[in-house]
Amino acid sequence: MIKVVIIGNGNVAQHLLKVMLKTDEVTIVQVFARNKNNISHLITENRITSNYDEIEEADVYIISVSDNAIAEVASNLPFKNRLVVHTSGTSELSVLDNKNRKGVFYPLQTFSKSKVVDFSTIPICLETENESDYKTLEILANLISKKAYAISSEQRKSLHVAAVFVCNFVNHLYQIGNQICNENRVPFEILQPLIIETANKITELSPKEAQTGPALRNDTKTIEKHIEFLQNSNYQELYKLLTQSIQNVKKL
Amino acid sequence: MIKVVIIGNGNVAQHLLKVMLKTDEVTIVQVFARNKNNISHLITENRITSNYDEIEEADVYIISVSDNAIAEVASNLPFKNRLVVHTSGTSELSVLDNKNRKGVFYPLQTFSKSKVVDFSTIPICLETENESDYKTLEILANLISKKAYAISSEQRKSLHVAAVFVCNFVNHLYQIGNQICNENRVPFEILQPLIIETANKITELSPKEAQTGPALRNDTKTIEKHIEFLQNSNYQELYKLLTQSIQNVKKL
Repeated sequence: MIKVVIIGNGNVAQHLLKVMLKTDEVTIVQVFARNKNNISHLITENRITSNYDEIEEADVYIISVSDNAIAEVASNLPFKNRLVVHTSGTSELSVLDNKNRKGVFYPLQTFSKSKVVDFSTIPICLETENESDYKTLEILANLISKKAYAISSEQRKSLHVAAVFVCNFVNHLYQIGNQICNENRVPFEILQPLIIETANKITELSPKEAQTGPALRNDTKTIEKHIEFLQNSNYQELYKLLTQSIQNVKKL
Repeated sequence: MIKVVIIGNGNVAQHLLKVMLKTDEVTIVQVFARNKNNISHLITENRITSNYDEIEEADVYIISVSDNAIAEVASNLPFKNRLVVHTSGTSELSVLDNKNRKGVFYPLQTFSKSKVVDFSTIPICLETENESDYKTLEILANLISKKAYAISSEQRKSLHVAAVFVCNFVNHLYQIGNQICNENRVPFEILQPLIIETANKITELSPKEAQTGPALRNDTKTIEKHIEFLQNSNYQELYKLLTQSIQNVKKL
């Protein structure tokens, strides 16, 4: 049995709380939340505190707050030599306070408040200062997910940049596609099976193998027609730059 | 029962042939293929021809060849006033020869030779010159897929540009993510659940609603760190342009 205190009441904190409450081998000792109302629909009020001095003993303290608040929260904790972890993809291990044993417990997924997530498929990136703490986090991660990885602060930084490309920027390209459809009175849903298939493909092929389209074929006639069609100068520039980038990779 | 002749032996032709052979209400009268060997694993040799004069009578002739060969193939057909369609996303209806009734039967999906596709989920974009031909194509489309749409040549052009953004360019962003992972010895598979979830999200939310990340939050500190991290000047430029583009949309 692993005893956990969750500190925070945001999106990730709530998703972690929900999945851990359902996990037999995890006991949620307490949730620390400045505003009890944000979290009282998930856990009974006697297990919520907003007073640092009331925080109880646990095996792992999970700080799940915004990046710029992690250091302050960690330094406010009134105990020492316990395992304290944060859940951030961008903050280094070292932002945590030296008085406790530091760790990272970073679930790599895009969380929306409204959408239910299947935690078992979410990769959890772990980092600690010593091996026995790593074992603790690994056991905890494996209780809620099938995939846990040892990822250093430096690796996590690269992972976050990569995630911006494959998630945030990809979604923006969906948005451009949606806008082109709207402007031409074509239902965007026509493109959805293509979008899903394009994503599924890279579970079987590498993205380099899966690449198709006019840029890869160097079909200059089509490329010119498309750029002319776009009109919006920002989208034209993006089209040119992405086409060029695909052709650069091809040459490698 | 709809009688079909397929002209061509490429990727799309083979996928159409496979699904239509399995459909009771469709009879594949014949396949026209310059090289019989390319297609003889799918259909008996007596139903393959490479001679235009041997092409038999059918309700629909489907020309599924490369874009720049459609016009020539259509003009080579030795009959007139029959329904002849092409399967291209980029060619207009008018590239077909005037001696026959023209149509488009365009399945919008990314086809790999190796990967099995579920045709029932593929949107089929239809265009004809007259209504009774549209009815014929609609019946044929509904026999192999749940989704058929009336899409004009002009709309199809916009759909193809949009598809380049949401498929080809998206896959290139996956490739960049993969490369960043490789360079930092992080397994790319960690990002796969994020990629799948990002694609699935837009079946429930519009891309504009689904947008997240440092660009949208205007988190300039993170943005600067990421650009510095990238080093590759091409990826830096892409990062800046996509960030700017997300922020432009936010202002709308």
